[in-house]
Amino acid sequence: MRTIKLTLAYDGTAYAGWQSQSDRRTLQQTLEQALEQIVGERLRVSASGRTDAGVHALGQVVSFHTESPLSVDVLERALNAELPRDMAVIAVDDAPAGFHARRDARSKRYRYVIRDGRQPNVFERNYAWQVPRRLDDARLARAALPLVGTHDFSSFETQGSPRATSVRTVHALEIVRDTVDPDRLWIEIEANGFLYNMVRSIVGTLVEVGRGARDEGWPGEVLAAVDRRAAGRTAPAHGLFLLWVKYDLPMATGQGGQ
Amino acid sequence: MRTIKLTLAYDGTAYAGWQSQSDRRTLQQTLEQALEQIVGERLRVSASGRTDAGVHALGQVVSFHTESPLSVDVLERALNAELPRDMAVIAVDDAPAGFHARRDARSKRYRYVIRDGRQPNVFERNYAWQVPRRLDDARLARAALPLVGTHDFSSFETQGSPRATSVRTVHALEIVRDTVDPDRLWIEIEANGFLYNMVRSIVGTLVEVGRGARDEGWPGEVLAAVDRRAAGRTAPAHGLFLLWVKYDLPMATGQGGQ
Repeated sequence: MRTIKLTLAYDGTAYAGWQSQSDRRTLQQTLEQALEQIVGERLRVSASGRTDAGVHALGQVVSFHTESPLSVDVLERALNAELPRDMAVIAVDDAPAGFHARRDARSKRYRYVIRDGRQPNVFERNYAWQVPRRLDDARLARAALPLVGTHDFSSFETQGSPRATSVRTVHALEIVRDTVDPDRLWIEIEANGFLYNMVRSIVGTLVEVGRGARDEGWPGEVLAAVDRRAAGRTAPAHGLFLLWVKYDLPMATGQGGQ
Repeated sequence: MRTIKLTLAYDGTAYAGWQSQSDRRTLQQTLEQALEQIVGERLRVSASGRTDAGVHALGQVVSFHTESPLSVDVLERALNAELPRDMAVIAVDDAPAGFHARRDARSKRYRYVIRDGRQPNVFERNYAWQVPRRLDDARLARAALPLVGTHDFSSFETQGSPRATSVRTVHALEIVRDTVDPDRLWIEIEANGFLYNMVRSIVGTLVEVGRGARDEGWPGEVLAAVDRRAAGRTAPAHGLFLLWVKYDLPMATGQGGQ
């Protein structure tokens, strides 16, 4: 029995999120069906985390077990031929027995894309949150500072499912203005784990500061409140991209990405 | 009676091209219906040129006549509220009486986007021609040189409709490798006018050289043959973007673009 680690990019627009549901088209189900066509077994795949409807990925990581003798190169080519055009396999690697994409994840990075130009951009309508007024990058950066580090992020969790702890460590929270297209702003967050809707909730809160509706100190106060009712609105799903997932693995490619 | 010049961006993916057809959704028809909702008249718009199914625009220019007293700012906001999310008005200007978007066009620029990375990019599947092997930029640039200038471009016209002349002046033909994403290559062509499928036919021919299947001198020979059977295959529509149209007009905004 082999364990496979698969790195996947997808455009989440047409899907009801990652997780299989009986009545709607999901990413998990689409991948499992493509795998079944190729290896001839019914497989169950595990992702590093479930992405919601409309959320995209450049480097989602998925693990599964298979009896297939196909080489990783053949698997990659066959999967890319079988998958719909809004899903693509970036890498296929043999992983150590017992590797699990969710349980073994050490850190992840998300990018949230905002467009704050005067006019809507038709090509990014599914790939960016388009806000009507220019945000203040410097205010955003200062407001984000208190969120970096190890904290209880309960305030930034929506519809919380029961978890052992809501403490997470944010390694980086960066505000980047695109130098080529200055109407595009990225908020990137890297952490050892994320609560449900944590990125979108942080982004929604920061944007309140960036557009001048709240003080720079407010996101820090929201964090300290440890109360989800304190946060700003949740940013829409379609601006969110899972960039990569890191593992401590004795493999050539420990990190996905495109 | 006012004459209006409208600059428009659109994602052509969901449309059967520019021109109105009885049975399929087109860009012209969608724009005319939105205008009718706003100004309360049935209008007929003229574009600088018809784009084919799947072709996109950042700065298509359209003219029409109206009795509406609405200001250009109100027209712009109302149109952007009314149009579907894959169409956006970039600018609305009052134009001199008699202005016509097609007849008065002095030059246009198109961009053709190619991706030549190892892997398919799910986010550009409708916005770039994805070729499986890296093209040679320098070969492309040298092969393109003979096409610049004033020539009979009959060899690069497909399904030619009768025209007074097939002589056009190509002001620029540039090969640009994206410095941020080196898997993306642009072929931009600026000319005083274009024959039917001229850009896609030139791109298809150049790509044969870029991938090493033809000599660098071949595109020049194709041009000299003045015979459409000489050219390479026509590049697919979805990589093509109309960037802007230039006019000699006494107006503040003589050039569209986003």
